Amino acid sequence: MPQKWLVFVCTLITTPFLVFSGNVDFIIKERANLLQKELDLMLGSDMVLTDSEKKANEIFMDLKTRELEYGFKNPQYYNCSKHFFEYNTEIMNSELFKLIQKMPKGALLHAHDTALLKADYVLNLTYWDNLYVCFQENNINFLFSEDRPTTFCGTKWELVKDKRYSFSTVEEFDNELKKYFTLVIHNPKEVYTDINGVWKKFQDYFINTEGLFSYKPVWEKYFYDTLKSARDDNIMYLEIRSVLPPLYDIKGNVFDSITTAECYKKVLDKFKTDFPDFFGAKLIYAPSRSVDAEVVKKYMEIAKEIKKKMPDFLAGFDLVGQEDLGAPIKEFMSELIEASDETNYFFHAGETNWYGTSSDENLADAIVLGARRIGHAFAIVKHPLLMEEVKKRNIALEVNVISNAVLKLVEDVRNHPLALLLAQNMPVVISSDDPGLWEAEMLSHDFYVTFVGVASKHADLRLLKKLAFNSLCYSEISNKDKALHEFNIRWTKFIDSIVKDKW
Amino acid sequence: MPQKWLVFVCTLITTPFLVFSGNVDFIIKERANLLQKELDLMLGSDMVLTDSEKKANEIFMDLKTRELEYGFKNPQYYNCSKHFFEYNTEIMNSELFKLIQKMPKGALLHAHDTALLKADYVLNLTYWDNLYVCFQENNINFLFSEDRPTTFCGTKWELVKDKRYSFSTVEEFDNELKKYFTLVIHNPKEVYTDINGVWKKFQDYFINTEGLFSYKPVWEKYFYDTLKSARDDNIMYLEIRSVLPPLYDIKGNVFDSITTAECYKKVLDKFKTDFPDFFGAKLIYAPSRSVDAEVVKKYMEIAKEIKKKMPDFLAGFDLVGQEDLGAPIKEFMSELIEASDETNYFFHAGETNWYGTSSDENLADAIVLGARRIGHAFAIVKHPLLMEEVKKRNIALEVNVISNAVLKLVEDVRNHPLALLLAQNMPVVISSDDPGLWEAEMLSHDFYVTFVGVASKHADLRLLKKLAFNSLCYSEISNKDKALHEFNIRWTKFIDSIVKDKW
Repeated sequence: MPQKWLVFVCTLITTPFLVFSGNVDFIIKERANLLQKELDLMLGSDMVLTDSEKKANEIFMDLKTRELEYGFKNPQYYNCSKHFFEYNTEIMNSELFKLIQKMPKGALLHAHDTALLKADYVLNLTYWDNLYVCFQENNINFLFSEDRPTTFCGTKWELVKDKRYSFSTVEEFDNELKKYFTLVIHNPKEVYTDINGVWKKFQDYFINTEGLFSYKPVWEKYFYDTLKSARDDNIMYLEIRSVLPPLYDIKGNVFDSITTAECYKKVLDKFKTDFPDFFGAKLIYAPSRSVDAEVVKKYMEIAKEIKKKMPDFLAGFDLVGQEDLGAPIKEFMSELIEASDETNYFFHAGETNWYGTSSDENLADAIVLGARRIGHAFAIVKHPLLMEEVKKRNIALEVNVISNAVLKLVEDVRNHPLALLLAQNMPVVISSDDPGLWEAEMLSHDFYVTFVGVASKHADLRLLKKLAFNSLCYSEISNKDKALHEFNIRWTKFIDSIVKDKW
Repeated sequence: MPQKWLVFVCTLITTPFLVFSGNVDFIIKERANLLQKELDLMLGSDMVLTDSEKKANEIFMDLKTRELEYGFKNPQYYNCSKHFFEYNTEIMNSELFKLIQKMPKGALLHAHDTALLKADYVLNLTYWDNLYVCFQENNINFLFSEDRPTTFCGTKWELVKDKRYSFSTVEEFDNELKKYFTLVIHNPKEVYTDINGVWKKFQDYFINTEGLFSYKPVWEKYFYDTLKSARDDNIMYLEIRSVLPPLYDIKGNVFDSITTAECYKKVLDKFKTDFPDFFGAKLIYAPSRSVDAEVVKKYMEIAKEIKKKMPDFLAGFDLVGQEDLGAPIKEFMSELIEASDETNYFFHAGETNWYGTSSDENLADAIVLGARRIGHAFAIVKHPLLMEEVKKRNIALEVNVISNAVLKLVEDVRNHPLALLLAQNMPVVISSDDPGLWEAEMLSHDFYVTFVGVASKHADLRLLKKLAFNSLCYSEISNKDKALHEFNIRWTKFIDSIVKDKW
């Protein structure tokens, strides 16, 4: 660039553009206007509160402000800057958390099949009859069988019951076993020193529990109790991501993925009979990305078949697995484009700290493939044009704050990109990903951390309501009118109950 | 919101806006276009490289790509995700780091008076004659004096020389003493457990060294050596922030802040005589914010007087100190507005994780007060309209990545908001804040971490050149034409030297 031009450009860009006015009132007003305009831009700012909601809002904001002001003055006690394991239990004593728990939260849209219920629940499953276990050096295998399994497992198969009672106390055995069912430890910062380390432990959970969960009766019970847990956390609808593993029965018969989907449907129908106030669930078929294109083609055929058999149950398709380990979406472009007319996509994309790599660039693929929603999208804030596309195309971003913190994308949740997404009124839904693995509720912990840890101090009940509203709007729920109508009824009831308690 | 309207809005916003085309080529092109458009938006993308620069770029990018690809596959060895103290020495062996060191980097615009030189340098000052020390429980006092000081210090004053040689080895004493001159420890994550903890140690440094640095001959020598260190790191101009502490001489005479500024000017003039290729320095008077409005009024009078005496030396005014502890800019609005016609402002603002509090809202104050540049602005990415204002008004953001990591605003630098600022071509200058305290070079470490740890993998030599160019453009350097001309000469020389080495 020629020298004189350089100087000209330099002078041009650094000459103050606006004439500065020294008037105090004017400047103070200008400041207030700027900040107010931003509040009017934030997610939820379009919600208009009724008189009753305004009263409830006072209650929420009083509790929130007190928690934040205490944290501001005493950052060593501010929970949301610490590791989630240090405060996941403590916050449940918070009055604000209890309100959020009671609050209708709409739909849970990003949740992984066998990672939704806590360690104690999984432990209880190991009390079932006919369960064998094989302890290897770092891993564990389970198998339900009438007789001692004969398949090679590295060491030996033992009845869990026998192994349990061979320990000096049952408690000792159970505590040892529970370690395989959770990521929670007392010293996460020392043990999970990098992202691959924690992802390894995370993936080990799925490998270790495979034999336990893919036993057909367990699979069905687990899903029933997942729906129950969702309902208990005031969620009215669920979209569950599943790899649809082949299930087996006590005789050793193995069934295909279609059968797994049918089991889900059967359990759902039973649950809806038992709890008619629950709005239902749909499936997002979400097998592993660590395969070649031929396998993805087969996936699409399975998805097609499920759609044919259960058109109102399959929401769509996704690919799962740690993006940083490879197999970016672009490797399967042709296969995915081919199936795109018949399949809705809900891709994981950008669940990474990297920038300018295949992981964050998965976001571009998800968008051009017409994804309805994107899972995580952690890296999207580094991509301003992809942000514009997401807004233009109304692609919801399924944000899972706690998951991103536990799986070491971010440490202090105040640095989570969600803050920007809320500030810019992006189409966001809050979800939880794998709450069972970190002893979180199905949605309450994520809503709490969003409200107190991530959002502006000024963000109020309107944010919470909008997030719940978004979760239904951006879902694939069959009868959206009815769902929104019902949501409103429950919301009003909730508001009235907390206002009544207070006044 | 009436029910039917709610449903209508919900349907409207979730109906896909664009008709999805299944054509493979079209979609792949669309993807490529989106990502390319983003690259064309990034900071530096407007720079056009000469043939020689293109060759140099290949060298830079080859080194960068290799480092990043290794880190991508082996995140446990990826430096920029770790604590800076774990890699600050190691990266200096990197070929890329060495290139960046040699590279002309323009100006250093955010640097604090007595925190610029490393611990060994400060230790050497304690070898000067007539230096007394007083060790308290957690702190230390220094005083130069002809005779043993009689002022109360908690314990007793001893000659450093005597104290040093009373230890079993000099090395033992020096190692103990050095701890007061640095934040660097081998276990930062265990010791600095929250932001207030590390800020306390940080502020203790300034308190502990006050008596050492405010001895007039030391003050002058420290500044001379600061300029030398900047020049050695291929910086051509410096804007130094100083509280302008009262200096004293060996007889105990105490001088005012104006004299401190005059000392700076005197030393600068001497340095420019000794090193005529250095472009000079200016002062940003930056006293403590933890005062009341009356004191700020006095500050402005001091600034006015310095401006009168040394109109070409004072760049402007700032207020320093941990924003989260209070004293937000808005408390001093009237005083600052009153002085604004005569003073340029370079406020610290938004150096915080909080959102919706007085700390991040300092950004609004800095903007409406007509700041020329803003120090840190860490929180600005949560404020979309303030971002627009900054761009519109061309207010440079003085980003100090390593400082923000060491002082615990962010852990993994890939989560630093700088990534977004670069992506959106915001007016950014890279600076280092207090590099002496964490054993960093005056600018090379911050440039390296920006290039390798924060920016897109695709960001190349154009980013580096633009950042250097910005530092001069957004400075208050007196002869900008000449500076840019000289920068171009040095840049071309640098490029030619590395191309020559390679080919």
